[in-house]
Amino acid sequence: MEQEPVMDVAHLGHVELLTPRPAESLAFFRDVMGMTVSGEEGASVFLRGFDDYERYSLVLTASASSGLGHAAFRTRSAAALERRRAALEAEGCTVREVPRSFGHGKAYRFLDPDGHVFELYWETEWYEAPPDRRPALKNQAERYPARGVNVRRIDHFNCLAVDVRRCREFFERTLGLRCTERIELDSGEEAGMWLTATNKSYDFAFTKEAHGVPGRFHHLTFALDSREAVLQAADAFLEAGVFIETGPHKHAVQQTFFLYVYEPGGNRIEVAHAGARLVLAPDWRTITWTETERKKGQAWGLKTIESFHTHGTPPLPEGKAG
Amino acid sequence: MEQEPVMDVAHLGHVELLTPRPAESLAFFRDVMGMTVSGEEGASVFLRGFDDYERYSLVLTASASSGLGHAAFRTRSAAALERRRAALEAEGCTVREVPRSFGHGKAYRFLDPDGHVFELYWETEWYEAPPDRRPALKNQAERYPARGVNVRRIDHFNCLAVDVRRCREFFERTLGLRCTERIELDSGEEAGMWLTATNKSYDFAFTKEAHGVPGRFHHLTFALDSREAVLQAADAFLEAGVFIETGPHKHAVQQTFFLYVYEPGGNRIEVAHAGARLVLAPDWRTITWTETERKKGQAWGLKTIESFHTHGTPPLPEGKAG
Amino acid sequence: MEQEPVMDVAHLGHVELLTPRPAESLAFFRDVMGMTVSGEEGASVFLRGFDDYERYSLVLTASASSGLGHAAFRTRSAAALERRRAALEAEGCTVREVPRSFGHGKAYRFLDPDGHVFELYWETEWYEAPPDRRPALKNQAERYPARGVNVRRIDHFNCLAVDVRRCREFFERTLGLRCTERIELDSGEEAGMWLTATNKSYDFAFTKEAHGVPGRFHHLTFALDSREAVLQAADAFLEAGVFIETGPHKHAVQQTFFLYVYEPGGNRIEVAHAGARLVLAPDWRTITWTETERKKGQAWGLKTIESFHTHGTPPLPEGKAG
Amino acid sequence: MEQEPVMDVAHLGHVELLTPRPAESLAFFRDVMGMTVSGEEGASVFLRGFDDYERYSLVLTASASSGLGHAAFRTRSAAALERRRAALEAEGCTVREVPRSFGHGKAYRFLDPDGHVFELYWETEWYEAPPDRRPALKNQAERYPARGVNVRRIDHFNCLAVDVRRCREFFERTLGLRCTERIELDSGEEAGMWLTATNKSYDFAFTKEAHGVPGRFHHLTFALDSREAVLQAADAFLEAGVFIETGPHKHAVQQTFFLYVYEPGGNRIEVAHAGARLVLAPDWRTITWTETERKKGQAWGLKTIESFHTHGTPPLPEGKAG
Repeated sequence: MEQEPVMDVAHLGHVELLTPRPAESLAFFRDVMGMTVSGEEGASVFLRGFDDYERYSLVLTASASSGLGHAAFRTRSAAALERRRAALEAEGCTVREVPRSFGHGKAYRFLDPDGHVFELYWETEWYEAPPDRRPALKNQAERYPARGVNVRRIDHFNCLAVDVRRCREFFERTLGLRCTERIELDSGEEAGMWLTATNKSYDFAFTKEAHGVPGRFHHLTFALDSREAVLQAADAFLEAGVFIETGPHKHAVQQTFFLYVYEPGGNRIEVAHAGARLVLAPDWRTITWTETERKKGQAWGLKTIESFHTHGTPPLPEGKAG
Repeated sequence: MEQEPVMDVAHLGHVELLTPRPAESLAFFRDVMGMTVSGEEGASVFLRGFDDYERYSLVLTASASSGLGHAAFRTRSAAALERRRAALEAEGCTVREVPRSFGHGKAYRFLDPDGHVFELYWETEWYEAPPDRRPALKNQAERYPARGVNVRRIDHFNCLAVDVRRCREFFERTLGLRCTERIELDSGEEAGMWLTATNKSYDFAFTKEAHGVPGRFHHLTFALDSREAVLQAADAFLEAGVFIETGPHKHAVQQTFFLYVYEPGGNRIEVAHAGARLVLAPDWRTITWTETERKKGQAWGLKTIESFHTHGTPPLPEGKAG
Repeated sequence: MEQEPVMDVAHLGHVELLTPRPAESLAFFRDVMGMTVSGEEGASVFLRGFDDYERYSLVLTASASSGLGHAAFRTRSAAALERRRAALEAEGCTVREVPRSFGHGKAYRFLDPDGHVFELYWETEWYEAPPDRRPALKNQAERYPARGVNVRRIDHFNCLAVDVRRCREFFERTLGLRCTERIELDSGEEAGMWLTATNKSYDFAFTKEAHGVPGRFHHLTFALDSREAVLQAADAFLEAGVFIETGPHKHAVQQTFFLYVYEPGGNRIEVAHAGARLVLAPDWRTITWTETERKKGQAWGLKTIESFHTHGTPPLPEGKAG
Repeated sequence: MEQEPVMDVAHLGHVELLTPRPAESLAFFRDVMGMTVSGEEGASVFLRGFDDYERYSLVLTASASSGLGHAAFRTRSAAALERRRAALEAEGCTVREVPRSFGHGKAYRFLDPDGHVFELYWETEWYEAPPDRRPALKNQAERYPARGVNVRRIDHFNCLAVDVRRCREFFERTLGLRCTERIELDSGEEAGMWLTATNKSYDFAFTKEAHGVPGRFHHLTFALDSREAVLQAADAFLEAGVFIETGPHKHAVQQTFFLYVYEPGGNRIEVAHAGARLVLAPDWRTITWTETERKKGQAWGLKTIESFHTHGTPPLPEGKAG
């Protein structure tokens, strides 16, 4: 009999980035990205886009190196949170309960097969704008900043993984996420996969880690309100001396209009816009791209930049790079 | 104990519009809106935006007058379809089974409390583009038309109702839809409500029918890919002699960037863009607008046009109008 | 024999606005409009858009009331400046020589037939960006601000006049400006005229002063880089509590995409974008709009807002308004 | 004594492209570019963008190979036309009088130092739209097409030249054009120059022909109304199977937002948008880019594509290419 879709994970809530240059990273996200600082605790600063409904969507944590701290998803209910814990444990996964975190309630943390830290939580703190950040329209979380890149909200992130297929199957089985697109090489190896919990066509992606080093991070993406805003962002980055890696251009996979830069801590950051594209089909048929198709480059023919296959955070250990 | 959200309705699938001028209406949707004709049956023609994944999203049916034929939603599974039928029947609603319709399987039809025909279905026909409409990117349903207004997909519709609150409560209870925004007059009467089944901030709306005539229709909306595309659409409508009622401007409610026109059959059609705004919170807190707040007009101060409160389809019977 | 076009006036250089609330006006232009302060002298502060090549394009002068201080045009050469003085004097116009002004050399000042102060000059100071405002691209005057409304440059201004036709003929004869569009009422009266010295379709306009009070000012306009930027500006104004009078919408006359606000001193300010529309024909045939045509409102049907015909600066004297 | 600027050349009027595949080239410009056919004569078809005020801006001429037929500029007056002939002849240039051409009056034709055919004319035929192409707004030449790429007007062209500096000095001296930007290699050789007759920052450019073959053509550019329109054009080209060479991206030189494709005849075509950037200074100070600066690639870091230095039309003779 047909299996019913699992809808327990509601959406990506926040991502924690590690940075060896916390002051510069903070200045980048606040002044260039136009995000709001909404909290501090220990070695971490919490930031948000103007329409993130939760207190924050980005945690910047001072650290010896760069990379992903953790990625956190909000569930659709308290019961859904418990169901996902059970599913993870049924998979043999060790789930650690964190009674409380800044801005949200009880969380369950676990490692994906490649060693990235994921988190699930249900109870959360809604952002309450202070008077000087209160929006003119009450259906918006915070005032439009008119500053820097004007990040609206967190969109997705991308991890590197040694075994992409194993990670995908893990997330499908344990979290009930749906794979909208994937890349399969001629060898049969899975080189990329895009998973969604929402009507966005993806909430995160995993792509092939070519150097065999587990647990690495590829990029974190924030949504801007238009493609024109992405073009304006390119000028803002250029003027601020931020390194632009590639873009603006349109991905063939998922058709996202993208722009990639490196924040001062070394992590790759994307600002992107999806137009009006949504995945509405509850039984979306996964699009599989072949090696030949991917060699065509991005949607309008831009060759995928070489560093896209090599740069990740933390940096590769000595002897692994190049 | 906390109730879990019902996720059985996946998304708005199609809307049937009645038109007393079928040839002109067809020409409007095909040539000005840039939609593709994907079928014909009896008095109906079926059309689609270039990224609607199902065979069609619009049914144009020749009729003595204008208005809504029916509005159809796809469920998330076969079991979900049966659950919703049960919920409707538990509410005392008469559910009629339609064994087969053009482009989709078994459907359940019912009337909302105001008398509009709604439909639920699960099995559907995915659009297969003929060679000359095949897209360059395989993750898109059909070729970008580069013609007219370039409709991407159906977005939402809006009915008029004599008792808006009763309709909202009906849809919440029977279909498990979530109300993201609503208008409550000083009298306590509900003048508008916006419901969603997805991460779009609404899939349909009901607003106050001021003349006491049930079953009327306000507008049907298609999504364009950018606000610039909405501005270009205004020029396309202007050149084609299409009556522009109001816009482009930004709604305060839901913040949609809108443009309203009348198609030749008399039905109000909107082309719109939502930027990157989504409702991701599974427990979104309904925004209630007061009468005073709504008197401010649209987001940037445009006064709501008078005909927005009077024009609906079919036209009012003699003696009811004005 | 055919008369050769006079090309002596090169472009609009700067406009001086009078403001009874200088501190608030300054904050508006700097923080909301995103302009740069590039000088101060006496009761005046000088500001600029990021791609104005001269030191400034806006002078804000503290004053008892609001309105136009003066409007200044740069000539195409030193000889051109002298030729225009001669032409003005031949017309019987009193021309006053101002040996030096902040940021530019010798200027000739004169009154138009309605009493506005105009100025011509040739020698000018090019803006030299300090290190922290230096642009990444050397063909741009100053760094893109990524702040507020991101004004690129001054575009045009609009005065009110009791006798529009007389003013137009004065500017055509003395300055050699070209009238690209005009409005002629059924009575034969000229209700508006748009003049250009450049390939922009207008550098200033005069419209009918309905109360018989000479020397009044209608609005000053700055160019933004896209229609999307004008839409973003609407949000920036909304959030900053700036009064939005009308727009964004597209004018029928000249097709400018417009948005009008009032700055704290009371002067009407427009931010606008012209797309790729230019007047390239050296012998452009003046477009004359009839009263009937103008009653259609703006390009997409927006009715011209009533205050557009009444609000000017300085305010009308007691007994003249309403 | 200061020399006064020569303003005799008004603007670029039309460009004639040679094509060995006239039917396919015509289909490209009409169906994909969205241009209107406004005449035919002999081996030539005449086309136009919707806001070109003259009868046409593009001549497509069937020919054995590809490349530039001629490039034509309209003068500011009849006297200006004669003055330019005199200046050309004073330079030792042979000027051939063509009594009449399709759509314009007497023309003077001459060769630039690299052997391209240039033309000057004054009398011209204004486009009269037939009833079905008449625009809704009378200040526009023709109806907005809402078809394909929606070309507004001709913008500029680019020739290759063996001696760029000599060509620049020739055009400055004979036509009085102004050089807004140029590239000078470390060797002192001039590798590129951009000339303008208008407030557009360039009306044509010459760049280095690396193979020593004179008279070749680099590209012809049409203006679109927004950067979003250029992005939409990329999709239209992709769907139509048109080869996209590079872009969309922003040039560092002149800051144009560009997209380059090859039309079926082999000629490189650009669609572009300049935002609100204009050169208003009558004494604009030429920007000179160094070899080091140009190695940075385009504005946001895109490397200049190799074929940009090699592909021109007609193709290189055997033994010269590669």
